[in-house]
Amino acid sequence: MSLDRIRLASLHNKVMSAEQAATFIQDGMTVGMSGFTRAGEAKAVPLALVAQAEKNPLKITLITGASLGNDLDKKLTEAGVLARRLPFQVDNTLRKAINKGEVMFIDQHLSETVEQMRNLQLKKPDVAVIEAVAITEDGGIIPTTSVGNSASFAIFAEKVIVEINTNLSPAFEGLHDIYIPTYRPTRQPIPLTKVDERIGTPAINIDPAKIVGIVINSELHDSPSTVADADDETQGIANHLIAFFEKEVAEGRLPKDLGPLQAGIGSIANAVLTGLKESNFEDLVMYSEVLQDCTFELIDAGKMKFASGSSITLSAKYGEKVFNNLEQYKDKLVLRPQEISNHPELVRRLGIIGINTALEFDIYGNVNSTHVCGTKMMNGIGGSGDFARNAHLAIFVTKSIAKGGDISSVVPFASHVDHAEHDVDILVTEQGLADLRGLAPRERARAIIDNCAHPMYRDALNDYFDRACEKGGQTPHILREALSWHSNFEETGHMLTAQAQEKKTA
Amino acid sequence: MSLDRIRLASLHNKVMSAEQAATFIQDGMTVGMSGFTRAGEAKAVPLALVAQAEKNPLKITLITGASLGNDLDKKLTEAGVLARRLPFQVDNTLRKAINKGEVMFIDQHLSETVEQMRNLQLKKPDVAVIEAVAITEDGGIIPTTSVGNSASFAIFAEKVIVEINTNLSPAFEGLHDIYIPTYRPTRQPIPLTKVDERIGTPAINIDPAKIVGIVINSELHDSPSTVADADDETQGIANHLIAFFEKEVAEGRLPKDLGPLQAGIGSIANAVLTGLKESNFEDLVMYSEVLQDCTFELIDAGKMKFASGSSITLSAKYGEKVFNNLEQYKDKLVLRPQEISNHPELVRRLGIIGINTALEFDIYGNVNSTHVCGTKMMNGIGGSGDFARNAHLAIFVTKSIAKGGDISSVVPFASHVDHAEHDVDILVTEQGLADLRGLAPRERARAIIDNCAHPMYRDALNDYFDRACEKGGQTPHILREALSWHSNFEETGHMLTAQAQEKKTA
Repeated sequence: MSLDRIRLASLHNKVMSAEQAATFIQDGMTVGMSGFTRAGEAKAVPLALVAQAEKNPLKITLITGASLGNDLDKKLTEAGVLARRLPFQVDNTLRKAINKGEVMFIDQHLSETVEQMRNLQLKKPDVAVIEAVAITEDGGIIPTTSVGNSASFAIFAEKVIVEINTNLSPAFEGLHDIYIPTYRPTRQPIPLTKVDERIGTPAINIDPAKIVGIVINSELHDSPSTVADADDETQGIANHLIAFFEKEVAEGRLPKDLGPLQAGIGSIANAVLTGLKESNFEDLVMYSEVLQDCTFELIDAGKMKFASGSSITLSAKYGEKVFNNLEQYKDKLVLRPQEISNHPELVRRLGIIGINTALEFDIYGNVNSTHVCGTKMMNGIGGSGDFARNAHLAIFVTKSIAKGGDISSVVPFASHVDHAEHDVDILVTEQGLADLRGLAPRERARAIIDNCAHPMYRDALNDYFDRACEKGGQTPHILREALSWHSNFEETGHMLTAQAQEKKTA
Repeated sequence: MSLDRIRLASLHNKVMSAEQAATFIQDGMTVGMSGFTRAGEAKAVPLALVAQAEKNPLKITLITGASLGNDLDKKLTEAGVLARRLPFQVDNTLRKAINKGEVMFIDQHLSETVEQMRNLQLKKPDVAVIEAVAITEDGGIIPTTSVGNSASFAIFAEKVIVEINTNLSPAFEGLHDIYIPTYRPTRQPIPLTKVDERIGTPAINIDPAKIVGIVINSELHDSPSTVADADDETQGIANHLIAFFEKEVAEGRLPKDLGPLQAGIGSIANAVLTGLKESNFEDLVMYSEVLQDCTFELIDAGKMKFASGSSITLSAKYGEKVFNNLEQYKDKLVLRPQEISNHPELVRRLGIIGINTALEFDIYGNVNSTHVCGTKMMNGIGGSGDFARNAHLAIFVTKSIAKGGDISSVVPFASHVDHAEHDVDILVTEQGLADLRGLAPRERARAIIDNCAHPMYRDALNDYFDRACEKGGQTPHILREALSWHSNFEETGHMLTAQAQEKKTA
């Protein structure tokens, strides 16, 4: 038994099976679960909920930090448990259900979910299910590999279920910094002025009487990350971006340590940060959501001195290294609530360089992060908007083409806009980098087409832009054609008409 | 003479004619001028610049707080002075030049312009031209009816020209609160926690040696505002919104005083705020950009106890009343730099209700604030994005139809997106109010079409939405049709095809 992980003895009698705990979750409830980018999600209780739903169907609103591991979204979807889901997901099965309209998905800025709950604009959870490494003498909950929205969920919920993951070292205690903004109208400034400051408590402090069940999990682990290795294109993007950083430092627009870095999840951001390992930059710091392998590569290489995030999501290899040697990294790390890791107040104050992945962007710099052909949800906006709006530099990266060239990531008109031109400073593809700062839309178009578009699409984009300019406007468009590239793709599998392709080949 | 307005005697010898002062502005320069929503712009020097340019053509980048009065943008455009213009404008002649591509217009969030200058991402002004009521013993500049970006322009510019407006009472001194965020990486929290707090200084403090010229203006006044009277539609919008506020208070989601209000400029926002005069709400406060007539109507009615803004833009009638009796209002007012009035840190902390005008929005709640038919610039995004992203409630209002019904403000697909669905809580037309909080896109569409669309367009919107849903997706669209309403309007003068209109009539 692992009762030593439950240091408030009066809670020992709350230990129960996952099956028992899952019965607290009933049809129609709103449930807040830990978990952010496949890190630190409650594991046993949701699986028991799936089993329970297979016997007695039920539907819930599931709110998490961000995405879940252990195929939980898949299994919950297949069991028909999800009526509503927010604020983010990455699961293929759930994605299909969302796009069929079977699950209502509310795609939110990740800093805003608990703010909306605090203000009663979103329903507070009936039940919170939080993964922990321990419960303290005071009943405080020590999270595991993520904080996400766990603290606010536990504070807001009537009933709290704690899932203690005994696979993880008790050394996680002290890694987290739990700070919750005070209520309006007496809210105070968030007192954080440096990435390595601690402004809160190591535990989520709630009334222990709200803890209705404690489940011991000694079997299930976080799912390892599945970040693809760098390829020529992601390396190209990294190279362009590092050259840009070097130029900015040389010209006095960035400090030598660049300032706090934020990077979205995925292989491109990972490649960019890994690329910094070979650079001349020193004393790097991160103020980000997710700390991936690259963060620890930079720390190991002596290049990064501190990293603040809301979760740690690692490959199997790095997970073993970091989580088994946590004491070695602990003074260089902090995990915060996602409301704080992504908070606009802090993003603006600290002057963050935000690097996030675009699905596509248009010739004027409007970025689509979420919707394939303007309709089908991919994952969600995540924290990209929290960062891009207030970042010192809002950078979006993508490969210039997809599906072997059938899709151009640079299009005449973004089929969905998550980040308007006002919020986008720098665009990078493997082709090059467009610096949009201080440019009017017509100038942005020239910079984007020339620097970011794949050569196979450049003529067609120039042709569109030139003809649009003849019509005039601040942001010239030919509306009958603006979305035709996407329609072409839906209808023929290629963004350009056969005629345009032929013209290109000729 | 008005040398008593220049209390630092060593500056007396800097008094010169507007013509002399204008010669400091030379071809290719970046010029920062005071002025925000037709309030407090430098007047004599820009007019002298126009005269100068008519003899010796020159081109500049003109950066202001927001829009200018006295037809300055018109005259500067006609004189060919404007190569680049940011961050906002409302002038018809300049608008045409922008849309022809003759003037490069950089449309920015109003809180961001000076932040970008501070970080060397935008060129700092070579010359700043600032309207003032006085210069203090220390050489501090006391602004007039707006602060806008004046403080940072004066701090950043190499040369400063002060235009003293002797038409305005010296009583303006003490109205302003000049706070400038410190530099990164040591930036501190902005210490404002209540709308009526003062955190800065009454004057813009710079090295007086930078003041190269002082011009006395005793003739030119701010242009009065031209807000249209409430009509049935704006009154309808106001009524829906006030009923919504009453419901929110009754259900405990808003405090009885509603919390700080922000309202965009224009007749709809004015009607909404004026409507509050007849409501049961008490102790209202504003934390806004522009203080219009409605602010003072509410103060006069004893309904509003404090208003913070960046400018005061009044009709001739109210201007006379307020500016001639400033001492009577001064303890209920403060004017701040627009970086502070619009700062995301403060908007989020204070919990502002942001009410801004949309040009159009789509059935999923994406808002276009700027571009007619996705191409032609109207005015600019202004502060709407600064507020909407972090507001407690992000509200957008518009009449449901325009041009006698030829245009529907509710469209299948926004032809330009300034505010993505993630940032939009409440939409209001004279038809009704759609509360989008916590809704998935398909649910948002139902709420928007049913509540906000004009009945003459409702069937066509439902028809589009139903057919799009058959195709599937998180945000169902038929891309070949998505922008057809706008194309129809461009081609035929009506958003619906003759067939659709006929079907509606039948």
